[in-house]
Amino acid sequence: MDFTHDARTTGLIAELTAFMDEFVYPAEPVLAAQLADPDRAPWSIPPVVGELRAAAKARGLWNLFLPGEGGAGLTNLQYAPLAELTGRSVLLAPPALNCAAPDTGNMELLAQFGSPAQRERWLRPLLDGEIRSAFAMTEPDVASSDATNITTRIERDGDEYVVNGRKWYITGAMNPDCKVLIVMGKTDPAAEPRRQQSMVLVPRDTPGVRVVRGMRVFGYPDDDHGGHAEVVFEDVRVPVANLIGAEGAGFAIAQARLGPGRIHHCMRALGIAERALELTCRRVNSRVAFGRPLADQGVVRDWIAEARVRIEQARLLVLKTAWLMDTVGNRGAHTEIQAIKIAVPSTVEWILDKAVQAHGAAGVSQDTPLAQLWAGNRTLRLADGPDEVHRRSLARRELAKYR
Amino acid sequence: MDFTHDARTTGLIAELTAFMDEFVYPAEPVLAAQLADPDRAPWSIPPVVGELRAAAKARGLWNLFLPGEGGAGLTNLQYAPLAELTGRSVLLAPPALNCAAPDTGNMELLAQFGSPAQRERWLRPLLDGEIRSAFAMTEPDVASSDATNITTRIERDGDEYVVNGRKWYITGAMNPDCKVLIVMGKTDPAAEPRRQQSMVLVPRDTPGVRVVRGMRVFGYPDDDHGGHAEVVFEDVRVPVANLIGAEGAGFAIAQARLGPGRIHHCMRALGIAERALELTCRRVNSRVAFGRPLADQGVVRDWIAEARVRIEQARLLVLKTAWLMDTVGNRGAHTEIQAIKIAVPSTVEWILDKAVQAHGAAGVSQDTPLAQLWAGNRTLRLADGPDEVHRRSLARRELAKYR
Amino acid sequence: MDFTHDARTTGLIAELTAFMDEFVYPAEPVLAAQLADPDRAPWSIPPVVGELRAAAKARGLWNLFLPGEGGAGLTNLQYAPLAELTGRSVLLAPPALNCAAPDTGNMELLAQFGSPAQRERWLRPLLDGEIRSAFAMTEPDVASSDATNITTRIERDGDEYVVNGRKWYITGAMNPDCKVLIVMGKTDPAAEPRRQQSMVLVPRDTPGVRVVRGMRVFGYPDDDHGGHAEVVFEDVRVPVANLIGAEGAGFAIAQARLGPGRIHHCMRALGIAERALELTCRRVNSRVAFGRPLADQGVVRDWIAEARVRIEQARLLVLKTAWLMDTVGNRGAHTEIQAIKIAVPSTVEWILDKAVQAHGAAGVSQDTPLAQLWAGNRTLRLADGPDEVHRRSLARRELAKYR
Amino acid sequence: MDFTHDARTTGLIAELTAFMDEFVYPAEPVLAAQLADPDRAPWSIPPVVGELRAAAKARGLWNLFLPGEGGAGLTNLQYAPLAELTGRSVLLAPPALNCAAPDTGNMELLAQFGSPAQRERWLRPLLDGEIRSAFAMTEPDVASSDATNITTRIERDGDEYVVNGRKWYITGAMNPDCKVLIVMGKTDPAAEPRRQQSMVLVPRDTPGVRVVRGMRVFGYPDDDHGGHAEVVFEDVRVPVANLIGAEGAGFAIAQARLGPGRIHHCMRALGIAERALELTCRRVNSRVAFGRPLADQGVVRDWIAEARVRIEQARLLVLKTAWLMDTVGNRGAHTEIQAIKIAVPSTVEWILDKAVQAHGAAGVSQDTPLAQLWAGNRTLRLADGPDEVHRRSLARRELAKYR
Repeated sequence: MDFTHDARTTGLIAELTAFMDEFVYPAEPVLAAQLADPDRAPWSIPPVVGELRAAAKARGLWNLFLPGEGGAGLTNLQYAPLAELTGRSVLLAPPALNCAAPDTGNMELLAQFGSPAQRERWLRPLLDGEIRSAFAMTEPDVASSDATNITTRIERDGDEYVVNGRKWYITGAMNPDCKVLIVMGKTDPAAEPRRQQSMVLVPRDTPGVRVVRGMRVFGYPDDDHGGHAEVVFEDVRVPVANLIGAEGAGFAIAQARLGPGRIHHCMRALGIAERALELTCRRVNSRVAFGRPLADQGVVRDWIAEARVRIEQARLLVLKTAWLMDTVGNRGAHTEIQAIKIAVPSTVEWILDKAVQAHGAAGVSQDTPLAQLWAGNRTLRLADGPDEVHRRSLARRELAKYR
Repeated sequence: MDFTHDARTTGLIAELTAFMDEFVYPAEPVLAAQLADPDRAPWSIPPVVGELRAAAKARGLWNLFLPGEGGAGLTNLQYAPLAELTGRSVLLAPPALNCAAPDTGNMELLAQFGSPAQRERWLRPLLDGEIRSAFAMTEPDVASSDATNITTRIERDGDEYVVNGRKWYITGAMNPDCKVLIVMGKTDPAAEPRRQQSMVLVPRDTPGVRVVRGMRVFGYPDDDHGGHAEVVFEDVRVPVANLIGAEGAGFAIAQARLGPGRIHHCMRALGIAERALELTCRRVNSRVAFGRPLADQGVVRDWIAEARVRIEQARLLVLKTAWLMDTVGNRGAHTEIQAIKIAVPSTVEWILDKAVQAHGAAGVSQDTPLAQLWAGNRTLRLADGPDEVHRRSLARRELAKYR
Repeated sequence: MDFTHDARTTGLIAELTAFMDEFVYPAEPVLAAQLADPDRAPWSIPPVVGELRAAAKARGLWNLFLPGEGGAGLTNLQYAPLAELTGRSVLLAPPALNCAAPDTGNMELLAQFGSPAQRERWLRPLLDGEIRSAFAMTEPDVASSDATNITTRIERDGDEYVVNGRKWYITGAMNPDCKVLIVMGKTDPAAEPRRQQSMVLVPRDTPGVRVVRGMRVFGYPDDDHGGHAEVVFEDVRVPVANLIGAEGAGFAIAQARLGPGRIHHCMRALGIAERALELTCRRVNSRVAFGRPLADQGVVRDWIAEARVRIEQARLLVLKTAWLMDTVGNRGAHTEIQAIKIAVPSTVEWILDKAVQAHGAAGVSQDTPLAQLWAGNRTLRLADGPDEVHRRSLARRELAKYR
Repeated sequence: MDFTHDARTTGLIAELTAFMDEFVYPAEPVLAAQLADPDRAPWSIPPVVGELRAAAKARGLWNLFLPGEGGAGLTNLQYAPLAELTGRSVLLAPPALNCAAPDTGNMELLAQFGSPAQRERWLRPLLDGEIRSAFAMTEPDVASSDATNITTRIERDGDEYVVNGRKWYITGAMNPDCKVLIVMGKTDPAAEPRRQQSMVLVPRDTPGVRVVRGMRVFGYPDDDHGGHAEVVFEDVRVPVANLIGAEGAGFAIAQARLGPGRIHHCMRALGIAERALELTCRRVNSRVAFGRPLADQGVVRDWIAEARVRIEQARLLVLKTAWLMDTVGNRGAHTEIQAIKIAVPSTVEWILDKAVQAHGAAGVSQDTPLAQLWAGNRTLRLADGPDEVHRRSLARRELAKYR
């Protein structure tokens, strides 16, 4: 057992840290100003994001998330501390490095399951950063954490699939640069539960695709990255070649996509927590009430100790999970992936709550990133299935050991 | 000891319940639509609010909060269940009944401390619902939970006071109908700490008053009721007659204002909790996942039981506090007012969190009121001094019993 | 609504407070010494208990718990603050006043369901304090929170019932003064689930009654009051006249017994919490570490505030529940009885945990009452059905409102 | 980074697991019976412990904790999973392997700071398992987590030191096999705070050493391993050669002793948690209530998932801490040692609480190990300084990063 990063990782950490210091943190107020500009086109991506992407690509800090061809070739364990670093400026650093959800998951999916033609048409420009993409799975009318509930239909009609359904919280789909959606629906509702679903690629400008509105997250439109769209598919026709993998493979592909997606979220969330803790420490060291800095208050110190202790534990579990994914595969790391999905967002939520509290009114305002980070992190307890589903499933395996 | 409401209260509960059913709940989707109207003037109050106010006034459901002249003459204990009912539709019912903060506190303050001229000029139109008002105390640059930190200056210059300073989170001040601000500042920074502050009435259109921007609460502008403004006062001149009470009385007046303000918040918060619990029960009774309604899940049931048990306890403490305020005065109820200020928002936050979780993505969206209610309630752990300040103070008194 | 105690209650509070000060608290070290005496007969009740009983009886502080004939005639609401006071010295005050479980529940049961002969034979000496009793319901081999699981058999054989079964945690049954056990068993396992059980009176010296051992509670034998026995019934024969009520009425009688039993536990638990909070305040006011009293530590203050806020809420819910039992009956107060059963023990546990922590090693030792109080209170989360059962049941009723 | 154990550790895990299966678990009921034997000499160690010690020594499973000469030569990281395994049967396995506190800490201390004569006289028989020892630091009258509070005096008088003072919770000192105490006291109260203390070796049979009584832990005497004594030192004279290290070195030696002691406690506590989780799973899989196994209850599953997730995180932090101690030294691992001291006991307490709850009355009884394990673990939040002291200290270092 050894807790040191290898040489390549150590080098990349240094490079990325320098990039964050030189480019990313200084861009944060620029992003805020560009987002607040009244003349900005709705849902357009602020120019500073493109500038950062160019700078990162030029330095080779690009596609670090992707293990195979077209990516940086890093293992999950190598990528973990880098993804965490990007979480420290989570609105800017992940897109700057072309490592932002949902593109990352979509690129992995296409790399693993896409046909050569699909990879050429969609994966290449995604890897090059020319376009963005979305993943359309969640539906408003059903508990889609249970994939058998999905109501969107994908019906074959000659050489085409016809898609009908309603999706929401389709992250990034308000972004005009988003050119394609991967849509999950049922091709065969009569098949056994996990063979009913399929995935098709639907260009965003296909007739019948209607982007209805941007869904909010605790009031935030998240319009820095294309928000979260409600999208209606009405008799949307795509060629059968747009099917990803085989008919009925949708559930399995979704499962394959989720493991890396979840751990990436957790890695970044740790960076969010570290940033929040740093902001909290700076705040309480400088803010004076009742004659002394807040940092002298025992309760505030208690928060800070608790935050540090929780972060350390959560990070180690994320790292071990990454290592397991690398060594025994995503399926072998299933329990641990669930464990971090359960543990990390609630840990980070607790830390962000205390950070908000330490900042007073500024903590809930637009003048610190804390409230927005809180809101984004809060959704992680719901996204990809609520915690409760994962906890029940994890317990079932634990109980089975002693039956 | 007796836990029944008196006859007048029981009657008013019935009247208000009927009003909620007939007018308020049906107006909720109307409000949402009017707020979302792209042609709406920024920060203007949606017309449905005015319609409700007319309806409520016509029925005599008006100024229920105010114990004395011009009000309904209710005790705090009588008002408590009514205020709770308004909390069930907290964006609409409190303003409909002219019982919304910060006007309530301002009207009480003017009724208690205002000169006859001040009462005629400002209190009467407030009671009549012709204008709205704001209360400018919190400052961005200092921990204003410690009033001795306040930096806004109110300096006498001949027959005028000159106000200079910066305030933020001035609720309602973005509202064009807001005609006057009660401003807290220091008239004598050299006096002993609790005699330095004074309050003056500043008409919102006074030269030098600059409403800078609307502050956000977890992404929400709260533009249904005039938001939360940042306001700069630059050499703002008002006649000396605009002083409320005496010079140096600002701290004492603020204290007097806080007691009722805090309990009103707590009363309404209980209504929010009841509404959230109702929405949760309805949701989990109808939503199916993995083959059965969410209501069959043990963890969901556990939330619901906990919610009910916590609400019952919190409500009783609020009621007892109201009774104490009526019988021994606000000062005599000091410990209990602090206790509910500590207990209620965190209880309601917990319930809203579970309600969000039970609603999945809808819970964080604009399609249920839950996320916005959560955000508004979250600020109560900060407003009028963060919980931690009140906890320390309450503990000090407890410890003194045994010293 | 009114939160003042009536005159009789106020008078009794004063009398009982005086009795606690004059007799009970000074007897605490005497009890400890008598319990530690190596020459003491195992499980014998220390003499100081008898002395206190005589003193209380002489002052009329006797059987305060019993509403009807033979008791003090107090309502639940009147008894509540008195029971709380006894909780402040919970090993001594309840037995001193003949108000200790399980005798209280047994006396109520006999008063309500006993035949005249049963009342003469058992109730009268219990009311007079001549004997003690036990209630034999819990079984080691099944989840007896679900009464349909009970395996003890009560079979009619001519003019006798024959009892066979194993019970444990039969409080008080190690006490040589315990003369009778009320035993719950099945007379008709084929009846519908809630009509299978009956109760019989079994004199402790009946042949076939074997008191096997004293069960421990976190290491404590609780030998101040007869501990918690494991008892085996082997072909134990009692006359049919020993049946309480009718055959098949056991479940209903048990339910009737539980309501008052639970609220009495909760009332006393509040007294325990108040005592613990007092001890904590005294400790932290006087104990110095790192140059200042523990009371100056912010975290310690936070505990104290939280304790006070929680106690106030819990007490009000207990009082309201008592009032409901008085006004709408135990059945009408079912939800509230469950609510306090859920809320109070966990609240008191939290406070005792902090009290232990504030006392350091002394807190876990025999030199303060805190660890033993913690252990006793911990069992309340299990006794009469674990919290989880009550929470599920309470939630079911809440959910049914919206179905 | 690599999460696999090395070959030696893997081998020892297998050997120890086999030893646990073959010898230790079967000895658990034997221990219980021997402890309950009414003819047993008070505080004598049950014979089964000696038998296990012989068996372990014969297999070379001996002194695994000790890195240097006389020990197994394992690193902390290698020892960690072995210590965890011993925690699964914490009353038997640690003493069986001569790896039980306080002997472990005392042997380390003597190995590191003892003179050749001291090592020959005390360390050798301790390593050989011929005697046991105690460590006398905690005092009843002061907050001894702050070592400057210690009041025990060690005064030089010619060739002797004279010890006067009162200590309590001296683990193991009731054991007749305990032959020596390491006593912390002040040799120079006028020196600077961390140079006032010294340590001397005091044979337990020295005149003036009075073992007053066994302190309890939540009712438990812990008489399987010599309990926790209160010891009075009255003019106890030992030769100056019994000083460990130099005068004034007591504080530094104590600090050196604490790091390994704390991590050993944490390692074993993880084994306790695993055992408790196993017992819980077995219980809920087999116990039926309301028609189905407890394992089907959602709340019970939630506990199990939470337990697994918490254990995994806590273990990784313990392992990383061990690795840091091995690679950068105890001082370099200071923050992490504090972090596990804070995190592990509260995690294990939570798991034990749920295990108790799942076991019902059996959980608080002498028929499962759970209540006693809970009580022992509870003391870890107090021992070697309460959590609150460590949290404040850890926070101070975190805050200093941003000052």
